[in-house]
Parts: sequence; structure tokens; C-alpha cells
Amino acid sequence: MAGGSRTPGASVTSRVLAVLGAFDAAHPALTLSDIARRSGLPLATTHRLVAELVTGRALARAADGRYTIGVRLWEAGLLSPLHTRLREVALPYLQELYTTVRENVHLAVWDGDEALYVEKVTGHKSVPTISRTGGRLPLHATGVGKALLAYAPPEVVAAHLRRPLRRCTAYTVTEPGRLARELATVRERGWALTHEEMTLGSCSVAVPVRDADGVVVAAIGVVGHSLGANPQRLVPALRAAADGVAARLAEAAQSSIRPVQRRSA
Amino acid sequence: MAGGSRTPGASVTSRVLAVLGAFDAAHPALTLSDIARRSGLPLATTHRLVAELVTGRALARAADGRYTIGVRLWEAGLLSPLHTRLREVALPYLQELYTTVRENVHLAVWDGDEALYVEKVTGHKSVPTISRTGGRLPLHATGVGKALLAYAPPEVVAAHLRRPLRRCTAYTVTEPGRLARELATVRERGWALTHEEMTLGSCSVAVPVRDADGVVVAAIGVVGHSLGANPQRLVPALRAAADGVAARLAEAAQSSIRPVQRRSA
Repeated sequence: MAGGSRTPGASVTSRVLAVLGAFDAAHPALTLSDIARRSGLPLATTHRLVAELVTGRALARAADGRYTIGVRLWEAGLLSPLHTRLREVALPYLQELYTTVRENVHLAVWDGDEALYVEKVTGHKSVPTISRTGGRLPLHATGVGKALLAYAPPEVVAAHLRRPLRRCTAYTVTEPGRLARELATVRERGWALTHEEMTLGSCSVAVPVRDADGVVVAAIGVVGHSLGANPQRLVPALRAAADGVAARLAEAAQSSIRPVQRRSA
Repeated sequence: MAGGSRTPGASVTSRVLAVLGAFDAAHPALTLSDIARRSGLPLATTHRLVAELVTGRALARAADGRYTIGVRLWEAGLLSPLHTRLREVALPYLQELYTTVRENVHLAVWDGDEALYVEKVTGHKSVPTISRTGGRLPLHATGVGKALLAYAPPEVVAAHLRRPLRRCTAYTVTEPGRLARELATVRERGWALTHEEMTLGSCSVAVPVRDADGVVVAAIGVVGHSLGANPQRLVPALRAAADGVAARLAEAAQSSIRPVQRRSA
């Protein structure tokens, strides 16, 4: 991203983004040289940019000298429509759903060919999952992902199925024909199911969430240990949550911004 | 922030931060000229920076042509220790507390002389509040704020009380001597109380959360309509949540980063 540009401004903006992009869930705290290496920037440039970003509180310096994402960036991120227009609207419904099912509740959208987890409501009694708010998981191996895939335009799904599908467990469905048939079943019955396809021991059930125009913009899912025996028992509570969120999104559509950007697949 | 610097890089970094800083809770969607005006940058500079930030998905363009915070910035923000080290640790406890009390549950830290709300757990049955995740409210007028103030070092509290204290309602305690006495009471009994001091009709009860060294790094509060009659009934559930979070923070302190930066007052 860096260097070589004749417009210094453009170059610096992309360098700033490269510094921020050096952080991810597996690397939330980095030394200067980590940042330089991961962003591909010279150490001197990194040093200067990091100092400026710390001054602006976009980055912070931890007690051990490593750098983390700062308070101002956290605050700015929460102004994203994903948070303000989707998460905030959905939260009370996710909350009620959690109170009913006492299993991990997820809200996810399709973003860049993955399921992006916008919220996760969980308690002590829920099975640990690898999902996290702000995290990404494969569409084909998760309940919310399958719900999103099932209602995507056929050409988008076809393009997705042409890519190599990662095998996350021995039970992940990676054969495109089988997955396509499963997505047809999801559309018929209105809910998606996974059996240990992302994580051994975990099953999930998920339903789509529609916007004011009836387009599926998100999915709500429940992940637990023992949903396998009778997962459909969770469907009414999931549908109630999804319908509630959809109704609120339809109300919000009267305002000028669309609540959620449609998929960018 | 912008212009006048002899180091173009420094200038551009601060300009990028000025563009991001143009967005706030009251202004989550802005036109180019809004951004230029609010950031104090020339329109041409704003145009170029915004285009670069949209390319990097730090900003997004909504259907109505206005700009919002983008997905990548939302994802980056969630890597902040406030989220990963505090919110994620606290969420199951906040969740159980909400299930018990069915009123708004808040987790807040002291940041820049305000109570910064790190999480808000709420449902349909909770009274609407002006608090929001990522929002800021005055320390002296909120339950979580009073809990944070009560356990701050005396010189920090004294400095805070020397500043003008905003009167949010007719019941806000703004007289420094009276507030100081109230904070002493909070320390004695271990919990803070507000009666319609931030919003008419709402009361709150809050307790401090300590880190591994016993330092108060956060507060957990409950806000509801009718806590006034017997607010102390909520204290055991609040304490259980705060103790749970404290125990988890102590465990986390064995890792290399301190869970929460101490106050920067």
C-alpha cells in the first residue's frame, strides 16, 4: 500500500490504514516492529505514524510498551451503521432470545464473502464458541452464514460455491452440489441448521432478517451443545426475534439512510 | 488540527483523524461539506481523504450519498482493550445481571473526565435511557460515574469538583461540598445511587469493579424507573456481577497487558 505514490496525501492515508490494519483479533497488541512488519512500512515511518495516532488516541500504549487500538477509534467504530442501525435495533430482541434459550445468540451480516458477527449475546451457561463481535467466519460452515447464503441472489451464491470451501471440521459441507441442495431446503423451511460444521460439539439454528423491501440483510442464530436432537424447537423464538428486528428496520427505513448496506459480494 | 505543519505526513495523519472526528453520535452520517465544515479542512482535501477512506472501507457511502463510519473502522475499534479486555470479560456477568433485574445494565470507565459507557445491556422491558455503548455522560450525575468518582484518588476528585458541574436536571448534585459528602457515603456503604439526577424519572444504583491490584477500573450500574423505593435490593446482584468481573480481570492480569488503562484524569 505504501510508497511510490506521487500524491503524498494519498500515500499517508493508506499508510495510516495499513498501521490500523496491522491489528487483528489474533494480534490486538503489537510492538512498533510488529506494526512495521505487518503493515509493510519502514520502521521510521511506522514510528512517526504511531506517535501521531497515539496523540490522537486512535492507538494507545499499554503498560508493557505494546500498542493497541485506542479509545477514539473504538468510539468512532461504534458510529458505524452496523452498530447504530443494526446492532442497537436488534439488541433487545437478541436479549429476549437469549433469556428464552440461554444459548449463544448471534447477529451476522454478509460482508466480503464471510459472515461478519455484529453481535454476540452470551452468558455463563452458554457453550464457548469461537465467534466474537467483530469476528468473521465462513458462510458455508455457520448457521447464520447458511441463512445468509440461502437468500442471496442465485448468481452470488453460484459465485460463492465456485470458490474453494474450507473444511472446518469433518462435518463441514464443502461439496457445492450438496450445499446448494441444503440451501434450497433452508429456503423451503425458512431456517438453517449446522451440525458440528464449524466446531465439534456445537450445533446452530439460524433464520434470516429482512429489511423494509423484504431483502435479507442479516441473520440471527443460536449456537449450543445439544440443539441437534430437536433444533426446530428454537425456530419460533428465532422467528419472533427476526420479525421484531425486521419491523424495527422497516420503521427505520423511513429515515434517510438504509439501515444496513447490502452485501458487497 | 490541519495545515501549517512542515511534515506533510504529520499533517495528513491529523487530517485523517479530523475527518473521522467529524462524526459523532449526533452526526453519524455526513455529506462531504458537513465533513469539511466539522473537520475544518478545505473541501478539496476532504474530498480526497474521504475517497481514500472509502476505498479502505474506513468510511462508507450510504444510499443517500452521505458518508458514515465504515466496516473496517468498526472492526478495528472492537480490537480495543476496552472491548476485548473489559467488555468481553464482563458481558456474561452483565447478561446474568440483566436477566435478574430486567433493567438497563451499564458498564462504564472513567475517561477524559467523563463516564464512558463500554456496554449497555437492555431489553424491551427496560426504561429508555440516553446512555449508549460508546457514549459519554457526566461522572457526577450518573450512578456509574459516582461509583468511579468515589474511588478515585482524592486529588483527582478534588480537581474534578473544582470544575463547573453541569446541572442535567433539577436534582443534579452540582454543589462540590454536597457531592464530596455523597462520595464519602458511597465509599462507606460500597454503592452509589442517583435519583433523577441525569434524566427525570430514572434512578440508578452502581458498584465499583476492581482490578487485580484492587484499583477501581470500572463501574457496573442498573438504571430503572422505580428503583427509588428500595434501591439497595439490587446491590447483592450488582456486587455479584462486579466480583465476577473482578475475578476475571485478576486472572487476565497474568497476561502481559493490563486489562484496562487506568484513568487519564
